[in-house]
Amino acid sequence: MRIAELSRRADVPVPTIKYYLREGLLSPGERTSHNQAQYDETHVHRLKMIKALIDVGGLSVAATREVLGKMYAPGMSVIDSAGKAQFAMTTPRPVIEDEAWAEATEQTEALIKRLGWQVRQTNPARQTLTSALATLYRLGQTGQLELLDEYARTARQVAEAELTLLAREPDPHTLLETAVIWTVLGDIVFSALRRFAQEDVAYGGPAEGRHSAEDGGVPGAAARA
Amino acid sequence: MRIAELSRRADVPVPTIKYYLREGLLSPGERTSHNQAQYDETHVHRLKMIKALIDVGGLSVAATREVLGKMYAPGMSVIDSAGKAQFAMTTPRPVIEDEAWAEATEQTEALIKRLGWQVRQTNPARQTLTSALATLYRLGQTGQLELLDEYARTARQVAEAELTLLAREPDPHTLLETAVIWTVLGDIVFSALRRFAQEDVAYGGPAEGRHSAEDGGVPGAAARA
Repeated sequence: MRIAELSRRADVPVPTIKYYLREGLLSPGERTSHNQAQYDETHVHRLKMIKALIDVGGLSVAATREVLGKMYAPGMSVIDSAGKAQFAMTTPRPVIEDEAWAEATEQTEALIKRLGWQVRQTNPARQTLTSALATLYRLGQTGQLELLDEYARTARQVAEAELTLLAREPDPHTLLETAVIWTVLGDIVFSALRRFAQEDVAYGGPAEGRHSAEDGGVPGAAARA
Repeated sequence: MRIAELSRRADVPVPTIKYYLREGLLSPGERTSHNQAQYDETHVHRLKMIKALIDVGGLSVAATREVLGKMYAPGMSVIDSAGKAQFAMTTPRPVIEDEAWAEATEQTEALIKRLGWQVRQTNPARQTLTSALATLYRLGQTGQLELLDEYARTARQVAEAELTLLAREPDPHTLLETAVIWTVLGDIVFSALRRFAQEDVAYGGPAEGRHSAEDGGVPGAAARA
């Protein structure tokens, strides 16, 4: 198919496709004349992946290039590709070397040790967590740190369910794509469901614990009962 | 304190502070001469909140203005302020009215109904979830939809723990600030912990289920056992 058809099929404007071609996110089509090229289904699919990572996952063009590079790297095992793509998908957070950062680093280390999890030093999510915790320290919001272990416990339930499902996929290429897409979209899905749950717990919930004006207008007051 | 001192204390550059003042994110200091103003601790704290929402939470200046407006709106109950701030904190996702979007909308409605949760039609997280699910449909990644109920169940555990902790806070203003900050940072903390858990489940885990080269290099293969 020509680039116009590719654009229609993947719902990506032609100038954006040309940009992705220049940036090396999309492999070139088969040249049929000096200014025309033919594209196939692999291009449609790849464009949908790029669109998902950038538009929905919020990844930068550079991060997307890296993720795709790891995903389709020849001669790399599925597990290594998945691990490397995973790392590339984590947006780096600004490091501010203050007292709060030092305390947050300690908390991150202590949590991983307490959980007994194998988390490599190179896992960029360490920095993500430290950055979030440092912000809580700077704002004096340390009460919420009590929730860390509960968060970790539930995050592990989610990860186990995800990997159990992944392990059922026989095709390594599909497995890798699923792992990448679900890593990015899983964060968004979980965030949305957490917002739903917060609304339901604060304003709805089971009839006996339902929030009412008599609670003094405090969300979650019912949970005290 | 003068603006230079405010800048140092909150770790925000002076031009950025001036920008926030112009944009109405920060209330003006007390004018002491035609080109000087005095700031106090409330400005330091407010700047730290702005910084957290923008730099760590990734909110836009417009969204931050709206969240802060809801948070510090006079004459509004805590529960209404928290609800409104919550909604303002959800970044809108692009709506693409195709077949996948229609299917995803149905899935979102069906999930909420199945869970029996009270989620208002105006909750912007409905659109967030629909957008993520539509992307999965477009990529043919529908196998992962099986995980939705497990995600919802764990999201509710998290929300309950959060609201139980919040309900212990006696000061309504602190409670509101905590709710806002933790909503934004909670997503990031959970995402980081999910990455830790994925690494641990795929490469580590309990000794008997530990991943090894004999699994064929498939992450989570151990989970099948």
